[in-house]
Amino acid sequence: MALSIYEVSIPVFLRAFGNLEAILDKAAAQSAADGADPQKLVEARLAPDMLPLAGQIQRASDTAKGAGARLSGVDNPSFADTETTIAELRARIGRTVDFLKSIPPEAFDGGEARTISMRNGAVQLDGKAYLLGHALPNFFFHVTTAYDILRHKGIAIGKADYLGKL
Amino acid sequence: MALSIYEVSIPVFLRAFGNLEAILDKAAAQSAADGADPQKLVEARLAPDMLPLAGQIQRASDTAKGAGARLSGVDNPSFADTETTIAELRARIGRTVDFLKSIPPEAFDGGEARTISMRNGAVQLDGKAYLLGHALPNFFFHVTTAYDILRHKGIAIGKADYLGKL
Repeated sequence: MALSIYEVSIPVFLRAFGNLEAILDKAAAQSAADGADPQKLVEARLAPDMLPLAGQIQRASDTAKGAGARLSGVDNPSFADTETTIAELRARIGRTVDFLKSIPPEAFDGGEARTISMRNGAVQLDGKAYLLGHALPNFFFHVTTAYDILRHKGIAIGKADYLGKL
Repeated sequence: MALSIYEVSIPVFLRAFGNLEAILDKAAAQSAADGADPQKLVEARLAPDMLPLAGQIQRASDTAKGAGARLSGVDNPSFADTETTIAELRARIGRTVDFLKSIPPEAFDGGEARTISMRNGAVQLDGKAYLLGHALPNFFFHVTTAYDILRHKGIAIGKADYLGKL
């Protein structure tokens, strides 16, 4: 009855991405209804030296696909950070979700004990420590900050959109 | 080699709280050095209808202690939301950490299958779905938003402070 490393990673990412897609749809719809420039949302940020909305979603994508690849041993596809519209950010999420779904759950067997190398080999840790101490906190950081940027810019979303239906 | 529900909850909360304590210390020190009113930080928020820093930390505390109590079956201590200073918020985190550390890890055995009742019984789910679908995402939401508020207010912190040492 314990939890598998697959359960604690891929379905968690997929759930959050589904909620984030719905949040982006609301942002796009509200921008269109208000006659606002949706481009401004993509470039919005909470501090001058923080990543804008686009960067937050790109890093959430990278964190999730990096975790999927490292914990299962499959190749990590490289996605160029070229998104400049909400539609393109949504497509980035879609490609990330497709990749995560393409990895067979069995490929994660033993992933908790895999040696994960980070920062060009300067840090090595096992899959469990990597997922719980880095990948999950980092993933939720970027998803939450994307939400926070949109809230800060007046998009009418709430915590229920972030959490989704239980 | 699978993960226990204890490993996926309590140490994850403790790690994030430790990082958050260090972040609050930096915020307090910078406020003092700048001659700024630290009270303004406690009341700062990203949108008029979002919780301020104090509320974000109170909800992170509630989410973590609620998860600790529900997954282990111990009583959930009630903490009044009376914090109005950074020192008091740090003490709130300290009390939360003390409570989480007071629960024996063995008390979580089988916690993944416990029935967790939410929203006055309107939602019932097992401990695993509760932790992965609600408690962890909600916890990281509030810790990240606390960080985002401080960054938005110009506190000199970075992602490394949020993630902590690996």
